[in-house]
Amino acid sequence: MSGSTLGDLFRVTNFGESHGPAIGCVIDGCPPGLALSEADIQPELDRRRPGTSRHVTQRNEPDAVEILSGVYEGKTTGTPICLLIRNTDQRSKDYGNIAQTFRPGHADYTYLQKYGIRDPRGGGRSSARMTAPMVGAGAVARKWLAAQFGIEIRGCMTAIGEIDIPCDDWSQVSQNPFFAASASKTDELEAYMDALRKAGDSVGARLYVEAKGVPVGLGAPLFDKLDADIAYAMMGINAVKGVEIGAGFESVRQKGTEHGDELTPQGFLSNNAGGVLGGISTGQDITVNIAIKPTSSIRSPKQSIDLAGQPATVETFGRHDPCVGIRATPIAEAMLALVLIDHVLRHRAQCGDVQVDTPRIPGAVA
Amino acid sequence: MSGSTLGDLFRVTNFGESHGPAIGCVIDGCPPGLALSEADIQPELDRRRPGTSRHVTQRNEPDAVEILSGVYEGKTTGTPICLLIRNTDQRSKDYGNIAQTFRPGHADYTYLQKYGIRDPRGGGRSSARMTAPMVGAGAVARKWLAAQFGIEIRGCMTAIGEIDIPCDDWSQVSQNPFFAASASKTDELEAYMDALRKAGDSVGARLYVEAKGVPVGLGAPLFDKLDADIAYAMMGINAVKGVEIGAGFESVRQKGTEHGDELTPQGFLSNNAGGVLGGISTGQDITVNIAIKPTSSIRSPKQSIDLAGQPATVETFGRHDPCVGIRATPIAEAMLALVLIDHVLRHRAQCGDVQVDTPRIPGAVA
Amino acid sequence: MSGSTLGDLFRVTNFGESHGPAIGCVIDGCPPGLALSEADIQPELDRRRPGTSRHVTQRNEPDAVEILSGVYEGKTTGTPICLLIRNTDQRSKDYGNIAQTFRPGHADYTYLQKYGIRDPRGGGRSSARMTAPMVGAGAVARKWLAAQFGIEIRGCMTAIGEIDIPCDDWSQVSQNPFFAASASKTDELEAYMDALRKAGDSVGARLYVEAKGVPVGLGAPLFDKLDADIAYAMMGINAVKGVEIGAGFESVRQKGTEHGDELTPQGFLSNNAGGVLGGISTGQDITVNIAIKPTSSIRSPKQSIDLAGQPATVETFGRHDPCVGIRATPIAEAMLALVLIDHVLRHRAQCGDVQVDTPRIPGAVA
Amino acid sequence: MSGSTLGDLFRVTNFGESHGPAIGCVIDGCPPGLALSEADIQPELDRRRPGTSRHVTQRNEPDAVEILSGVYEGKTTGTPICLLIRNTDQRSKDYGNIAQTFRPGHADYTYLQKYGIRDPRGGGRSSARMTAPMVGAGAVARKWLAAQFGIEIRGCMTAIGEIDIPCDDWSQVSQNPFFAASASKTDELEAYMDALRKAGDSVGARLYVEAKGVPVGLGAPLFDKLDADIAYAMMGINAVKGVEIGAGFESVRQKGTEHGDELTPQGFLSNNAGGVLGGISTGQDITVNIAIKPTSSIRSPKQSIDLAGQPATVETFGRHDPCVGIRATPIAEAMLALVLIDHVLRHRAQCGDVQVDTPRIPGAVA
Repeated sequence: MSGSTLGDLFRVTNFGESHGPAIGCVIDGCPPGLALSEADIQPELDRRRPGTSRHVTQRNEPDAVEILSGVYEGKTTGTPICLLIRNTDQRSKDYGNIAQTFRPGHADYTYLQKYGIRDPRGGGRSSARMTAPMVGAGAVARKWLAAQFGIEIRGCMTAIGEIDIPCDDWSQVSQNPFFAASASKTDELEAYMDALRKAGDSVGARLYVEAKGVPVGLGAPLFDKLDADIAYAMMGINAVKGVEIGAGFESVRQKGTEHGDELTPQGFLSNNAGGVLGGISTGQDITVNIAIKPTSSIRSPKQSIDLAGQPATVETFGRHDPCVGIRATPIAEAMLALVLIDHVLRHRAQCGDVQVDTPRIPGAVA
Repeated sequence: MSGSTLGDLFRVTNFGESHGPAIGCVIDGCPPGLALSEADIQPELDRRRPGTSRHVTQRNEPDAVEILSGVYEGKTTGTPICLLIRNTDQRSKDYGNIAQTFRPGHADYTYLQKYGIRDPRGGGRSSARMTAPMVGAGAVARKWLAAQFGIEIRGCMTAIGEIDIPCDDWSQVSQNPFFAASASKTDELEAYMDALRKAGDSVGARLYVEAKGVPVGLGAPLFDKLDADIAYAMMGINAVKGVEIGAGFESVRQKGTEHGDELTPQGFLSNNAGGVLGGISTGQDITVNIAIKPTSSIRSPKQSIDLAGQPATVETFGRHDPCVGIRATPIAEAMLALVLIDHVLRHRAQCGDVQVDTPRIPGAVA
Repeated sequence: MSGSTLGDLFRVTNFGESHGPAIGCVIDGCPPGLALSEADIQPELDRRRPGTSRHVTQRNEPDAVEILSGVYEGKTTGTPICLLIRNTDQRSKDYGNIAQTFRPGHADYTYLQKYGIRDPRGGGRSSARMTAPMVGAGAVARKWLAAQFGIEIRGCMTAIGEIDIPCDDWSQVSQNPFFAASASKTDELEAYMDALRKAGDSVGARLYVEAKGVPVGLGAPLFDKLDADIAYAMMGINAVKGVEIGAGFESVRQKGTEHGDELTPQGFLSNNAGGVLGGISTGQDITVNIAIKPTSSIRSPKQSIDLAGQPATVETFGRHDPCVGIRATPIAEAMLALVLIDHVLRHRAQCGDVQVDTPRIPGAVA
Repeated sequence: MSGSTLGDLFRVTNFGESHGPAIGCVIDGCPPGLALSEADIQPELDRRRPGTSRHVTQRNEPDAVEILSGVYEGKTTGTPICLLIRNTDQRSKDYGNIAQTFRPGHADYTYLQKYGIRDPRGGGRSSARMTAPMVGAGAVARKWLAAQFGIEIRGCMTAIGEIDIPCDDWSQVSQNPFFAASASKTDELEAYMDALRKAGDSVGARLYVEAKGVPVGLGAPLFDKLDADIAYAMMGINAVKGVEIGAGFESVRQKGTEHGDELTPQGFLSNNAGGVLGGISTGQDITVNIAIKPTSSIRSPKQSIDLAGQPATVETFGRHDPCVGIRATPIAEAMLALVLIDHVLRHRAQCGDVQVDTPRIPGAVA
């Protein structure tokens, strides 16, 4: 029963709407003693922020985070940590037409049918803006995971529309507006995006995210499996339509002789498992692919209905992304961190005093 | 915090190991007044059962279910329903070698590293046998969903290895051992499977499952989204490595003009959304694709390590499936039913008295 | 797994410390469509507020609540509602000595031993100030319960120290600083309290709270029982050491012929059950008694230890209550409301379509 | 959201009805590696069992427990443990009249109004028989707690009706049918109980239960407080109407100078807190008092209504206890163990690596 809460032991409760007074989250269950301040969180929010390139929504939100509780003299106390982000740049007039119609591909129709009422401004709670508090909470999680285990999490775009992007230079991820781990496609992508914007259209994307240094043993079958929780967290990100772990849908075509990752004392010989077997981490890299659909808000007109159920046409003016996937990398990284820290605490609860004689296989592929 | 419990309001707690005395589940939260007996459940278990064709594990388990509680004079009382299935055909000797080594692709290694102890017989709790109680619980859920809303759930295989299987005749699903919704591939698949078995190898598969007649409004953003819970439930099925909703990974290549399903008073004009928008059901068919990896237990030898961490070779003798996907269809249908009923109850809790003026769009594609 | 969250379907996550920047809560799962503004909440916070009489802590907090999310055009949207209360009057210097020692009866020692760190200012998270957000959330719950069912919740003090206070005039509750439902004891209580303050001592209190108009059927055995959840919510209020439902500890001495409330078509003939049987509401008044211990912070010196574990003496200067029970009435009322609304939603989830032929017995005692 | 599940990390899901085929529970989250067999559990069930003296229900159930899962080669595997107890002595005919009327003080009326259906045989799920699986689960918890921490849990009756029973000789608890920790009252109680039975009446009781050797730090404010969870678990036991921790309702009359337990390096100087401060264990004995109402099923006729809502008379024939409190001691001990183990795991999750410089105060009163 999650509602607006993610996690069980490192629990993050998210609140806010795109055009309400503020958005934020409450992190409950963070271990005490972690050095924490806004300076640990703000850079991650800045990576995600709208307005940092011409290819993303031109909404000018500083996304300045404030820590309201749970920290004393620079350390977490183990009590709930509230992160608050005030909304400042809410241009409601850009969305005037939306209140009367339902945008195809958006959640307008479903929210109204479910709740009988909806806040139409900027998509209300369905807005991707609601990922900002998760990125903030993810920053806290990542700091702890890095300190405890040396876990590193990173992601990149591996496709935008028909353009596949290789993963050949991770240092490039912060050097282009696409979170592409490559210098080889930037010009092509810039041109492609500009063309889409002019056409008033949008396109989907594929994202890759990984975690290195994950200890073996995270995840509890049958229904607290690490890969199942990762799938849940990723599918829950706005606009996601597919999630794969390891070999993913390639597994359909693989033989068992090929897929099963062999074990040696020096390490596994492959990682089709994506770092999870039987729902439990193996110690290998967790590797995840995510499919993101094209932005629903586009300038091209689309058929719809109005509040009375009558035919209507919808076109979106104002701010929007031609590819929502572009901002998703920090979000997916944050979600992976949040799932991992929750699992670390759970594993510690049930198995904190387990002694195992069989040596662990090193994580890296041998 | 699920551990071995799926769901929050229609909660299913699963117990048992492949070679223990019994397996089963406890269903807590089932609405009262539903007519229920073993006769509602046994047929579903029989669909899943090993030994029903030569292409699946030759273990002869009757899987006879017994209802131990929660039913009085043929109706559910609203109190927990325990389903029990005694294990009868446990040939432990087939697994003797396993206790000393870790099978590549299996959870042997991860279970030992997590718990410090594992039941190696038949894979213990990691065995696909543990899906039987979920199929039992799914039968209860499906009965209620059908009675309340006329919801129908059905699935079929759409690929085994390199062979794609069309969905052109649903009446065929029960007529071949592959749950193929087509008569066109049976001979080819039979030959393919026989060859695999002889070669001591296995292959992956892709499964499609859908739900029709789902009411609009199920799912609660941000973290109780219907599609996120579906992804979680499917990824948690043994051997699953990927999950897609609607257009899934095709969305990566689609434009917004193409992807966004337009609305008319007669219905949506397409269903790339797969029946979920913003995490909430639209009333359209829920459509899901699942990638299943090849069976890990194969006769071909593979490198591994032993309990002391030393190099070893593993080959599996005895019973195994050349394609675990073949038995997965009833399981995926059950999991979809379990997610849906949990969401129906949750929606009823929060929004049970919501009145909406805007008419609902009929579910079928216009 | 609650941590700082109360409830499952109407979930309230509380954050903040006594001397941090702000306190508040997030309400998740509130039904949509409820008219709500700060004006519905502020009066309840004012009832609870310090500084409203000379008998309670002289800390001057306006406790001005701000709704940050979950409301649109004056109605709840079904999305999370964040209530924020900024702390303004934090006189840290009153607590300087506390950082080095542990106050007997306080949570200073236990927080440090648990978390390895504590915020000593004003008791940090152990402060009764943390009940303010619950009173805010309770106001939302009470409004919905009153609108849906006509449920009324009210409480009063029935004892302060050795002075028993009769419940003979509910209109008096808001007319004296003690929440006494009687005019007969005010002078005696004033004198008593003044004497305690001069003596630098404190005393315990007993509180009574009831809910009228509760529908039959709330509560789900075995572990979602209404009375069990009430006991949990009340025992969790700061300084509570005992909880009774109905005849409570009097039941120990009662015979079955006396205790069992007889049923007639016009109503039950007594209410020893306190409105709950088998964990489920009967429709009768829910009646609860709560024992509150004396304030731990007193001016009289007490033995303790310091951070190094060495003997030390503790006396509290500055602001404190001679009887924390005095402010507890609005808190207990809020907690009862929060438990009830959660149960209403749960009952609606599982039993929303149950039809019962047997007529309901009216709630009032016949 | 518990329904029939107690706990979050050591979770026990209970199933069964008094006259159904079987009762039992599933324990999920038990740490692996604990030596466990039926021999660890059966003695506790035997302590609780009906028919072990003439003062309790003459129903002859062997309550033979069977472990169906979660144990391999005599050790827990960390996977769910199902305990099954078959019902064998169900004399349905003793309850014939009950199906048509509602017994005052029983849950007959509330179950029917909630679910629209009820199993009337032996009280169905409202029967105290449903405590048997909890006693079984409690035996598992107690074994682990004793091994990990040396925690000891024990309880005794301190009053039956008007007869107070001193706690002067714990060795007597197993020597009389009343779980009285004294030899001084046995004859008086025997006579009292015989008189009650002849009169067709019943009486209430008061029970005391304590846990020694509890480590400091268990419990997480605000809503995972140890005392709140204890209150919840105890109030949830059949027939309980009141719960106190430490000084309980005596606190109402106490001054702060008296109540606050002073700290010294050798230990606390008193234990009015009952071992819990601020919701967290102090290391001192957890002390709990419980009020149990008189048995509702008595031979004396009482007014009631029938299924049509018309006046009727109810008298109970057949098997019943003149004092249900007599069997409650093992149940309360089990519940305390279950709450404690859940809290140990939770504390380990969040604070497993906390280092504290301040020495712990020894648990015993100095």
